[in-house]
Amino acid sequence: MSKPVKLTADQASDLIFDALVGAGTVARNARYLADAVLETELAGLDGHGFHWLKVYCEHVQAGKVDGKATPVVKRMTNVAFRVDAKNGFAHPAIEKGLAHLIPAAQDHGIAAMAVHNSYNAGTLGFHTAQIAEQGLVALGFANSVPAMAPVGGRNPVIGTNPVSFAVPGRKGRVAFLIDQSSSTVAWTAVKRAAEENRVIPEGWALDREGKPTTDPQKALEGSMAPAGGYKGFGWGLIVEALCAAVAGANRGVEMGSMTENDGLPVGAGQFFIALEPKVFSGGLFEKQIERLIASITAQSGARLPNARRVESRNKMLKSGLTIDRELHDVLKAYATRSI
Amino acid sequence: MSKPVKLTADQASDLIFDALVGAGTVARNARYLADAVLETELAGLDGHGFHWLKVYCEHVQAGKVDGKATPVVKRMTNVAFRVDAKNGFAHPAIEKGLAHLIPAAQDHGIAAMAVHNSYNAGTLGFHTAQIAEQGLVALGFANSVPAMAPVGGRNPVIGTNPVSFAVPGRKGRVAFLIDQSSSTVAWTAVKRAAEENRVIPEGWALDREGKPTTDPQKALEGSMAPAGGYKGFGWGLIVEALCAAVAGANRGVEMGSMTENDGLPVGAGQFFIALEPKVFSGGLFEKQIERLIASITAQSGARLPNARRVESRNKMLKSGLTIDRELHDVLKAYATRSI
Repeated sequence: MSKPVKLTADQASDLIFDALVGAGTVARNARYLADAVLETELAGLDGHGFHWLKVYCEHVQAGKVDGKATPVVKRMTNVAFRVDAKNGFAHPAIEKGLAHLIPAAQDHGIAAMAVHNSYNAGTLGFHTAQIAEQGLVALGFANSVPAMAPVGGRNPVIGTNPVSFAVPGRKGRVAFLIDQSSSTVAWTAVKRAAEENRVIPEGWALDREGKPTTDPQKALEGSMAPAGGYKGFGWGLIVEALCAAVAGANRGVEMGSMTENDGLPVGAGQFFIALEPKVFSGGLFEKQIERLIASITAQSGARLPNARRVESRNKMLKSGLTIDRELHDVLKAYATRSI
Repeated sequence: MSKPVKLTADQASDLIFDALVGAGTVARNARYLADAVLETELAGLDGHGFHWLKVYCEHVQAGKVDGKATPVVKRMTNVAFRVDAKNGFAHPAIEKGLAHLIPAAQDHGIAAMAVHNSYNAGTLGFHTAQIAEQGLVALGFANSVPAMAPVGGRNPVIGTNPVSFAVPGRKGRVAFLIDQSSSTVAWTAVKRAAEENRVIPEGWALDREGKPTTDPQKALEGSMAPAGGYKGFGWGLIVEALCAAVAGANRGVEMGSMTENDGLPVGAGQFFIALEPKVFSGGLFEKQIERLIASITAQSGARLPNARRVESRNKMLKSGLTIDRELHDVLKAYATRSI
């Protein structure tokens, strides 16, 4: 294997943006998406940054996702927004919706936006962090291709459906952020293990018969184990109901593939709720959040949910990022076409 | 042991209401609470109905919870409500708030209400079901006394903090309902095991040192294991941030006891979000919910999250409820005083 490529954050940012544009994304749809990919890579979420970027480029080049789509935001009421991503990337649709959602929540205390005809939302916490940086509490939900079977059943009916929750801190910072799938681990972790011929720990996945397995290949043919048994499935169902039913998007089982180039639009949904804590809390919000955080960080061995991501980011901003050379060259080839 | 007492649902309803009133709850605060206790018992949630009713009666008699409190609903905006339970029961405060929350969500697509100076919310799904019966999607959150330590830590900082999600069906019915704590099992299950000198399964709880234990006594001195490891703690943290910080109520660690008569108000918080799916879904809500449900119930061995509760209710409405005679006599003694 050849040596990985080392990049500064700025170089990585340019590579990501140029690859998206080179693959056929218009510049106005690529900026926020490129930022999301970079932040995912900086957060150390192995495989979720550059790895998915390659998939995005393949899909936009093939026309499976429309890189030139113009998302449409419909204001349904003063606090409710319906966003049609028009089978383009999720990111420009979410970005456009946030510009409506955030001021509505600031004015009225709560607002929500539902996105349909959408695509992979990527790291959900990237979007909820945008909301928290504006002083609001954010809840985010994104549905995905089927990966989890109901407890007692065998056939996957919902995705690993993540939930994210972001809490504003002082001076436009995020106090803490939760971003977690409803399954024990992300599907990508199993996919990676299969590619690298590694066994997976018990508890991660089930085979086609609904029995626990440590064989990643059997897991990919079967289903992902929900986190905490029926409770993880419950969380996944909340996400599915909000994203497929309330947002009126595809259920997981109706989606085009998120990985393969099957020529079908993904048609995923996303749902976001933004809350202005000042409206509800009687002045106690900041104090309670700070004390809650302190009660966790004061315990040796314990840390906040996003602590590892923040550490990784700080480190990579100084020392740079590394990327597999083969993957780099593929992305570089897309990027070259953007010039 | 003497034979348990058998009651019809109507007899149980009268006993509950009369016990609450006999213990010092004014009638206007007792009806909705009595309904909640009865529904909990009908749902077969062992120990959460009559068992907690006895605690409620003790607390109201002792003045720890104010049975005569008049909750105050403040309309902060047209979609945001702050409810002061005035150290009375949670139920009359929630009931009063729902009368504002529901029409606001119907009119605007989304609305929220935050409750503080509150008490044990009981079965959270009872409240979210009220919202779903009015055609709205409901999210409910309730914080409670400390029971879960952060992953890697030892000291409980948040409660088993339940989340509930209710989805409306046709004709004022609830299509499905999720109601689950953030811990592997409810605290009550461990408490019961301790009272009955039974060992508990591994994975339920941790001892004072943060090590897994099967001894319920050590578990009560330690902490409850979060469902799915750090993900369950993450869910619990979402609840704590919404209920203690956004709603401006006590954090778990600031609350008076929910079980012992320590003379201190509980001061818990609750947070509810109601959504009008029609506003967001482009007409797809009912279809997607029905297909999602069918994809689960079509699998042999799988069932909807609330299926067991619905079955239990149908059965008990026909065959009646049973109650431990000793517990019955205690409640009957309270009830007798109401006449």
